[in-house]
Amino acid sequence: MKISNVDVKTLKEKYGTPLYIYDVNHIKRNMDGYLNYFKSNEFKTEVLFASKALNIKELIRICMEKKISLDCVSVGEIYTAIKTGFNPSKIYFHGNNKTIEDLKFALNNNVGVIVCDNLMEVECLNDLASSLNKNVKIMLRMNVGVDAHTHKFIVTAHIDSKFGVLYDSIDYKKILDIIINSKNIEFIGFHSHIGSQIFDLNAFKARAEKMVSYCKGFDKPLELNLGGGYGVHYTDADSPIPFDIVSKTLINTVEETLKAQNVKIKKLLIEPGRSIVAEAGYTLYTIGYIKKTPNKEYYFIDGGMTDNIRPALYQAKYDADIVGKENEKKDHIVTVAGKCCESGDLIIENYPLPEAKMGDLLITYTTGAYGYSMSSNYNKALTPAIVFVEDGKDKLVVRRQTLDELIEREI
Amino acid sequence: MKISNVDVKTLKEKYGTPLYIYDVNHIKRNMDGYLNYFKSNEFKTEVLFASKALNIKELIRICMEKKISLDCVSVGEIYTAIKTGFNPSKIYFHGNNKTIEDLKFALNNNVGVIVCDNLMEVECLNDLASSLNKNVKIMLRMNVGVDAHTHKFIVTAHIDSKFGVLYDSIDYKKILDIIINSKNIEFIGFHSHIGSQIFDLNAFKARAEKMVSYCKGFDKPLELNLGGGYGVHYTDADSPIPFDIVSKTLINTVEETLKAQNVKIKKLLIEPGRSIVAEAGYTLYTIGYIKKTPNKEYYFIDGGMTDNIRPALYQAKYDADIVGKENEKKDHIVTVAGKCCESGDLIIENYPLPEAKMGDLLITYTTGAYGYSMSSNYNKALTPAIVFVEDGKDKLVVRRQTLDELIEREI
Repeated sequence: MKISNVDVKTLKEKYGTPLYIYDVNHIKRNMDGYLNYFKSNEFKTEVLFASKALNIKELIRICMEKKISLDCVSVGEIYTAIKTGFNPSKIYFHGNNKTIEDLKFALNNNVGVIVCDNLMEVECLNDLASSLNKNVKIMLRMNVGVDAHTHKFIVTAHIDSKFGVLYDSIDYKKILDIIINSKNIEFIGFHSHIGSQIFDLNAFKARAEKMVSYCKGFDKPLELNLGGGYGVHYTDADSPIPFDIVSKTLINTVEETLKAQNVKIKKLLIEPGRSIVAEAGYTLYTIGYIKKTPNKEYYFIDGGMTDNIRPALYQAKYDADIVGKENEKKDHIVTVAGKCCESGDLIIENYPLPEAKMGDLLITYTTGAYGYSMSSNYNKALTPAIVFVEDGKDKLVVRRQTLDELIEREI
Repeated sequence: MKISNVDVKTLKEKYGTPLYIYDVNHIKRNMDGYLNYFKSNEFKTEVLFASKALNIKELIRICMEKKISLDCVSVGEIYTAIKTGFNPSKIYFHGNNKTIEDLKFALNNNVGVIVCDNLMEVECLNDLASSLNKNVKIMLRMNVGVDAHTHKFIVTAHIDSKFGVLYDSIDYKKILDIIINSKNIEFIGFHSHIGSQIFDLNAFKARAEKMVSYCKGFDKPLELNLGGGYGVHYTDADSPIPFDIVSKTLINTVEETLKAQNVKIKKLLIEPGRSIVAEAGYTLYTIGYIKKTPNKEYYFIDGGMTDNIRPALYQAKYDADIVGKENEKKDHIVTVAGKCCESGDLIIENYPLPEAKMGDLLITYTTGAYGYSMSSNYNKALTPAIVFVEDGKDKLVVRRQTLDELIEREI
């Protein structure tokens, strides 16, 4: 099996397993998909990468190359971007509970836009910007109350979600009041995010109507940030909408809604994360012991919930293959289990694969988002390396953790 | 609020938040509870700490002081123990998928006992020990098929679990055959673990009968390792059985079963993990923004699923207090939400607390097990520090991660 013309067996020899592998061309194609089609003649557009899906320097470098902005959710993510040489004015800083220290860090590092989540944040930011004598652009995260029918944990806009402000609520009015009177805050527009792994374009339409209506009554055209949530293909149960269709639909819907409501906006933004990196990512494991129980057959792998917690956390499904046996008959119904001392450490359950033997390589697909970024040292497992491959060349971008690094903070 | 006579507000000043705090006396009391009551006149006994609950040097030092052995589940955990100066002959090495490199590491470091999970492991270990010319003691992990009615993810002995071997199965017979003929393997007994957070002593009785019966037909008395799983108090919904009762019940049950079945054993072992450290641990957070939605009130904290994933992963419940307001009227029904950009990052839902203001400290109880050990850098959050407190003194045992450490492995 080759990824971008690099043999994965060679990667195993060179870097060991478990190993996160990214196809750089695939990442760039995904970025281009958004960049090319998320365009309008009516307003400016901007594509942000939701870096929590994979916030590492090498990917941030590609964002720089592609002129993609960044959505960051913590000082740690912003720090990584700045250390990469990313222009901080192109960073949008998200989060429901930025501490005063977080806000100070953002102001002192000239982060472009702070996406404020709630009234208290706006109050704190206004005080802080005033005391530091800094000007700051903000967007306001709105809870638009649109439910996009996805996993409970990743729906973010039900009416009692922890995120955002409800339009016309008491808090909303107080925020407007602060903004109007602030000498330091420049309010540039609204943000909303209605959930993750969404396949239903109607949810986006319902939301567009709300967000456009919010823009009425302001004396200058605002920016609208539509967040992310564009679904990807994990298994054949998922039918993601191609990026060009997503992009065009978002643009058309907003254009039509603006016309219908007689509103003008300055800029439309989107924040794809998962849909940029998920399908470009693979995780390579070595199969260890194989075990049959009365009703199951297990292929044990040398990683698991420590490098991919999504199956345990969200009951997420993945496809897999045995490397070199992709075309063999898949006549074993197996459960791929990790090596963690935990019953729930199952990566794939009751899945057809060919007969495997110890030492075979197992590859899982679409693991490029929220794999490395949610990894842990549970069981004191070492965090795997990340390798980027492109046109026959491989490049180590994050090296495997060492045993000494596991205990470096212990005194 | 004080823990072991240390004011938690002082700890906040000194170390910041989020902060893991452990009451050392409480840990020692828990250890003594097992050490004092897990004793028999009929056989030797040994208490092991299941270190995956909290595998850090300082705790391993306390195990050394108390003469408690260690249950380790990875090379990382063994490495930490060895670096602490722990005697490797007192380590029991667990896991369903130890790699050849893992086994080599254990043999070369003279780990005391390898708890083999399956046939292929025994085959590999036998070959490896022979080629390295090493002798090795093994226990065999059995799947006793006893279901202890706990959370699906943490039940480990249902008949199709990934762990252990079924008695009298084909694999079991093949393993016995290898053991009998091996020049390098010394088989010393059986292990089983029937799940975590168990409150039902009947499950332990049912299991004891099975394990004792396994010992028949061997020409020397074997050791029986009963694993862990002893429940702790997270909230008042939990009614843990005191350690003395657990210990005495386990001992009495095994003694009676041995008599009834006319079997002798050499040693009985237990592996408490959670029940040693969970209730001795606290997590201290600073409250940031407070938000009201139509049906909810949120207290946002400066940590969350990155330092405690158990609520999101297992729907685990916790108790909490606002520091200094423990005795105030708890007339706000609030949801304590973390700062992660994820809707599921809720630590406690719909829970009575007094009115709080920004800057107040919130403390969660019983977070000493599987908090730090399952922590992640999701959202590039920094892993919190750990402080041990004892009789008015505090001691930093794991320092907070730095921003530079977040990216130290990136190239």
